[in-house]
Amino acid sequence: MIKEYLDTLGRQAIDAKQLLQSLTTTQKNQALEQAAASLIDKQDRLLAANEKDYQKAKEAGMAEGLLDRLKLSADRIEAMAQGLRQIASLPDPIGEVMECFDRPNGLHIKKVRVPMGVVGIIYEARPNVTADAFGLCFKTGNAVILKGGRDAFYSNQAITEIIQEALEKEGISQHALQLIAHNDREVTTAFMQLKEYVDVLIPRGGAGLIRSVVENSTIPVIETGTGNCHIYVDEEADLEKAVPIILNAKTQRIGVCNACESLLVHRKIAQKILPALGRALQEKQVEIRGDQTVLDQIPGACPATEEDYGREYLDLILSVKTVDSLEEAIAHINHYNTGHSDAILTENKAHAEKFLREVDSACVYVNASTRFTDGFEFGFGAEIGISTQKLHARGPMGLRELTSYKYQIIGNGQIRQ
Amino acid sequence: MIKEYLDTLGRQAIDAKQLLQSLTTTQKNQALEQAAASLIDKQDRLLAANEKDYQKAKEAGMAEGLLDRLKLSADRIEAMAQGLRQIASLPDPIGEVMECFDRPNGLHIKKVRVPMGVVGIIYEARPNVTADAFGLCFKTGNAVILKGGRDAFYSNQAITEIIQEALEKEGISQHALQLIAHNDREVTTAFMQLKEYVDVLIPRGGAGLIRSVVENSTIPVIETGTGNCHIYVDEEADLEKAVPIILNAKTQRIGVCNACESLLVHRKIAQKILPALGRALQEKQVEIRGDQTVLDQIPGACPATEEDYGREYLDLILSVKTVDSLEEAIAHINHYNTGHSDAILTENKAHAEKFLREVDSACVYVNASTRFTDGFEFGFGAEIGISTQKLHARGPMGLRELTSYKYQIIGNGQIRQ
Repeated sequence: MIKEYLDTLGRQAIDAKQLLQSLTTTQKNQALEQAAASLIDKQDRLLAANEKDYQKAKEAGMAEGLLDRLKLSADRIEAMAQGLRQIASLPDPIGEVMECFDRPNGLHIKKVRVPMGVVGIIYEARPNVTADAFGLCFKTGNAVILKGGRDAFYSNQAITEIIQEALEKEGISQHALQLIAHNDREVTTAFMQLKEYVDVLIPRGGAGLIRSVVENSTIPVIETGTGNCHIYVDEEADLEKAVPIILNAKTQRIGVCNACESLLVHRKIAQKILPALGRALQEKQVEIRGDQTVLDQIPGACPATEEDYGREYLDLILSVKTVDSLEEAIAHINHYNTGHSDAILTENKAHAEKFLREVDSACVYVNASTRFTDGFEFGFGAEIGISTQKLHARGPMGLRELTSYKYQIIGNGQIRQ
Repeated sequence: MIKEYLDTLGRQAIDAKQLLQSLTTTQKNQALEQAAASLIDKQDRLLAANEKDYQKAKEAGMAEGLLDRLKLSADRIEAMAQGLRQIASLPDPIGEVMECFDRPNGLHIKKVRVPMGVVGIIYEARPNVTADAFGLCFKTGNAVILKGGRDAFYSNQAITEIIQEALEKEGISQHALQLIAHNDREVTTAFMQLKEYVDVLIPRGGAGLIRSVVENSTIPVIETGTGNCHIYVDEEADLEKAVPIILNAKTQRIGVCNACESLLVHRKIAQKILPALGRALQEKQVEIRGDQTVLDQIPGACPATEEDYGREYLDLILSVKTVDSLEEAIAHINHYNTGHSDAILTENKAHAEKFLREVDSACVYVNASTRFTDGFEFGFGAEIGISTQKLHARGPMGLRELTSYKYQIIGNGQIRQ
């Protein structure tokens, strides 16, 4: 039953993908504009659906912060529409000739950027991800099958229907965007096995969701999001830069994957930086968990356990450790990090280069906040997530990272000897 | 016990990968030359180990063709060494600056090509894969953990030891190359779960192995090799080119993934091409399985079942089907192919372009044999396999496809607003 339902979605996505890859950039952009306009026009319907989700969640005792993330408003719908218009304004990566070469036998080989085909996205977060994920996949000529969070069920369904109506108006198959209309965990697991139809699966959400997808999916997965990000204050750091960078990376927004979770300080500079830094962090309500040197220098800090160094707090907590060398800092980071973003603060060029080379993360920084790991901050104009794996895409993923390529080979009768 | 053993290999690989990524190109090339020389110098040891495998396989009743693939000789060892020297002569992709851009806030962002880290390879085939896989991974700065086939166990172990000794001579950790010294299926499955240490897993072998890896691995996988390759003879094909191309694609080598397994012929040209083509194929002992039109035109052909169109024969068998249009050909191919290689034979440019655009395969050809889908034929100078998935790499995979990238971001105190 579930399998039949998912097979139907799969077949419909395959049909849609054939059509999508032949759309011109203009056709795609027009449809995105139309979808944006429809979300605004039909916002009453969307707000009513959202209200249903909101009341249900409230009755179930959802926390205030999560309730706020779930809630839609005219402003938030406008932002969602604006996101689609922004995607329409970006260059279309599809069709780009990435390489072109001739072989001695006369074969002419072109490497051309093409859509992935069918993208699956499993997410827990806010309903705006529905519109956003559609926009990014549609612009790159991909059909998309979404599995949203149970709490935003009615909102996701309304957004999907409104966009599908906009697509139909433009003469485009509504199967370009499909939402799985079931909330059972069983369906989610079966979706992860829909390898016959889905080319890539991207989970967006907490560590638990991502682990479950990695363990159960037979579809190739792009892992996103978990960030145990480090900042290392080198013995030759400029303290005028260091304190603002650390404050920014830890406190500018705490629930995000590119926030700093762990600080390493060279022993030679510990006495100089820790007291002032500790005060500044504590003023921002940050709890500091450190080793003995840290406890000696920062009144009010509490002892860190081994476990602290491996944690992504997503909270006003920072682990702090003193190290004796750059090498120790790099080894610590490569042991505990999640391959997301790590920074060194130093004025020593050789130290910076060693750190850039040897720290094994998607984004390695010198003298800047880890908070810049973001598709918009990188100038990609969009973001589907931050990849923490090494296959396919690493770091912020924009439109280009939602594409594959094919080789087109033109001959005039060549056969292999 | 198994888990402990694999964890040890994993930790050793992680240590080795740190060292490997700091080797210069010259150091890597010297080590490859040294490994090549050692294989020649120590060939008696290797031949003795191979003899053990060979006798065991012979006693177990292994088929003649497989026995031949297993057997090493002075010539084959020379070819193995030559493969390593060839890899040494190729350009080093590591460290290449792929992109470089500045942001309005002054951040300077570089996208730099880096090793994957630790590559796992599971293979069934000939012992020369051991040297070959090592060479490709080593040149790209990756540590590699190999799980070879049970039949080549002693040969693989001898090759590994000889290369490890060569590495030690060059002052390089022998853990750059590790071979799993167990043959239980349980170990292979546990290896597929070694996500903590291994960055990418590449299966090389038959469809059964690949399916098992895709289903059981938690490590990101690159699927390789299954090829149900099609040739479509368009109504505007040049028959002088068509017959030699089809013969080549079907018969030049039959057990390979880029051989043609299925032929589609436009109805309007069927009478013109099928009789002569049928005779030419039958002269080469090819069994033809076709629809009614084919049976009418080719005496000796037998009826094709639905199942035939989905098969990768790897044998002297060809399925042949008549179609009424280019669209029908494309739809048939996109339904039955494995995303490997498909060709159109036509003199009509618009037909060729439609085929190139709409057939969803790694390699799409106009007027050439599908047998060219190969890293060497593409001029990559090496090949680890042919990817049939869309994530990361598609088509022939050379050195570059064994790499990832990282972003290096240089600031001077930037914080996010």
